[in-house]
Amino acid sequence: MILVEEAEKIILAQVKDFGNELTPFENSLNRVLAEDLFTDRDLPPFNRATLDGIAINYSAFEKRIYSFHVKATQAAGEPSIDISKEDECIEIMTGAALPATTDTVIGYEDIEIKNGIAFIKNDSFKKGQGIHLKGTDKRENEIIVKGNDVITPVTISIAASIGKTELLVKKLPKVVIISSGDELVDVHDKPNPYQIRRSNNYIIAASLERYNLKADVLHIPDNPEVTKQNIGNCLQNYDVIILTGGISMGKFDYIPTALQELSVKKLFYKVQQRPGKPFWFGRHKNGVVVFALPGNPVSTYMCFHRYFIPWLKACMGLPFTKNRTAVLNEDFSFTPPLQYFLQVKLNMEIDGTLTATPFEGNGSGDFANLSEADAFMELPLERNNFTKGEVFAIWPFKEILL
Amino acid sequence: MILVEEAEKIILAQVKDFGNELTPFENSLNRVLAEDLFTDRDLPPFNRATLDGIAINYSAFEKRIYSFHVKATQAAGEPSIDISKEDECIEIMTGAALPATTDTVIGYEDIEIKNGIAFIKNDSFKKGQGIHLKGTDKRENEIIVKGNDVITPVTISIAASIGKTELLVKKLPKVVIISSGDELVDVHDKPNPYQIRRSNNYIIAASLERYNLKADVLHIPDNPEVTKQNIGNCLQNYDVIILTGGISMGKFDYIPTALQELSVKKLFYKVQQRPGKPFWFGRHKNGVVVFALPGNPVSTYMCFHRYFIPWLKACMGLPFTKNRTAVLNEDFSFTPPLQYFLQVKLNMEIDGTLTATPFEGNGSGDFANLSEADAFMELPLERNNFTKGEVFAIWPFKEILL
Repeated sequence: MILVEEAEKIILAQVKDFGNELTPFENSLNRVLAEDLFTDRDLPPFNRATLDGIAINYSAFEKRIYSFHVKATQAAGEPSIDISKEDECIEIMTGAALPATTDTVIGYEDIEIKNGIAFIKNDSFKKGQGIHLKGTDKRENEIIVKGNDVITPVTISIAASIGKTELLVKKLPKVVIISSGDELVDVHDKPNPYQIRRSNNYIIAASLERYNLKADVLHIPDNPEVTKQNIGNCLQNYDVIILTGGISMGKFDYIPTALQELSVKKLFYKVQQRPGKPFWFGRHKNGVVVFALPGNPVSTYMCFHRYFIPWLKACMGLPFTKNRTAVLNEDFSFTPPLQYFLQVKLNMEIDGTLTATPFEGNGSGDFANLSEADAFMELPLERNNFTKGEVFAIWPFKEILL
Repeated sequence: MILVEEAEKIILAQVKDFGNELTPFENSLNRVLAEDLFTDRDLPPFNRATLDGIAINYSAFEKRIYSFHVKATQAAGEPSIDISKEDECIEIMTGAALPATTDTVIGYEDIEIKNGIAFIKNDSFKKGQGIHLKGTDKRENEIIVKGNDVITPVTISIAASIGKTELLVKKLPKVVIISSGDELVDVHDKPNPYQIRRSNNYIIAASLERYNLKADVLHIPDNPEVTKQNIGNCLQNYDVIILTGGISMGKFDYIPTALQELSVKKLFYKVQQRPGKPFWFGRHKNGVVVFALPGNPVSTYMCFHRYFIPWLKACMGLPFTKNRTAVLNEDFSFTPPLQYFLQVKLNMEIDGTLTATPFEGNGSGDFANLSEADAFMELPLERNNFTKGEVFAIWPFKEILL
């Protein structure tokens, strides 16, 4: 049995770069960008009118010219039209490119246009107003989005604005989720009184969807040959195998034997934690890693968030974040010599602190409880009593816009 | 010009229930569950062994019987096998249904099995141990997941476990996102020097993906007939129209005229805020609502999160959450008489508080800045100076697992 920190270290030593691939920018949400994005032009790409009104040359106004011939009207998206006399102006729309012969935009509210002449009603405007100047946000070929970060809607719209229709993203590993055991029947079947339906594969598959990762799902019956053959195939066709259950040393758990016969090396078995003690982790010589998560649904979910997701993020080149914390909101005790992952409900208090209230339900077997909990709080192994107001790490599993 | 609170109130008065529909449970992530889910059996559905070992009747042990004939071996998923004599036991695996004639499971580490006889090596076990009792988590027909909440991976796995292969979810509105104006070219095209590529439609479409909502996207050129015809069609075929830009009163903004001619009633125009002042909101007599967001990308995104998302959540029956707050991490001043939505970077501090550091870039025109910001912080209108340590509401737009 090893410590949580040791397990984490062993797993993170198996981080692997799966390379990069191009993907259409519209389909890239939640992928990890593997390149920096650069502006293709200055931003804004031209001196852009920010008001509807007239564009003049301010020097004319300084010469006390207060009325201007409207030479032309220029919409956004049209080539700019220059003036050729100082008492001319261009009627201009928001978003249009300012004519090079003008330098100031006066809004409709400060002018009056009659018979093709614009009169200035209110002379409190300033030279250069009403213009978003070319290149003031970014220059051409400047970095506009840094790589090695998760792609958000903002990234996608910036990619659109620079015409980057394909993005280089980190390749995701090919993942198969394997459940096993004749006690587990398909979700569409009616279980016998001594059976239950498979559910762990769904919780993992749905959680991976959040990372834009489509995993395959496989169920293996209690049969040693079929077990070995199936796992052998998976070792050839996937980068990662996630097993849920079947790894304990019971008489009909054929998986440990199959893994051994197929040369998957055990890197650890059993972690000093609750839930999730019987967690097995190994690696095939061809590089495939095997996360054999305990079959209990709460254990599965805890190990998935505490170990698999940090591994996946590290493989994508994202920094390891253990900085999510919350304030324990009730005294709590836990005496067994195990690192306890307490189910909690999170709440953002009006003073800006995030609090975590223990929400345990019926203990680790009670997976119905997970639907109302928000996170696991990781309590230090070396202590038994935890006091309201103390801050501990959390492993959140309810997706929200923070 | 109206206040932010007034705009919010007018929009929330247009909340509509779009009804419910059935969806396969595997495809329901991030939808809103419209029904309570009930257990189809007790949970656990049988007295479930939680250890690999032997099942005995404790009364035999009380009679000082220390060795038991192994009558049979019972795997998980097999019908339970009863003992008929008190010195018999069943070798039993984790997950198996406990025989009714036994009441205690002793793990392998406390016994030794030789020639079909199990001897108790360690008698410190307790009556009833090693069993997760039928119905102790939930009884049959009890609520296991409450409705009117967002569907998470946990919901999906619970649905699997109860054999609920179709879930009743809230119908999403049919949304079309319309951009307009000849200054905007397709992302695949090379813009002329006085044009830019369309990007606002992508930021909104990608943001709606997070809610499992696939919106249609439409671009309308600067032409009054085409504008009217297109918007007219959309009023027949969608529940919501989101316009980005084209609503200002410039000469070539055909949209306000088209909306008026098509009997879309203006409910407000202009909100006392920055960014996003020229925000227009209206409603057709057939019930279609029109969010005409300002064309500036930062304004678009702010109005989308501050007004559209709360409206969408309310339509889905979710509670209105304005309780997300953070602690301002630097003094800040803003003097114009507008409610300011400050771009901030969020950080979870080690003391469990969420802090917001102003991150403004080049002001509201600078949408490149959004890629590094995490949220808009809503600063009170009636004040100009905001002090480090004060707590204000935030509108986060970077999706993270909290």
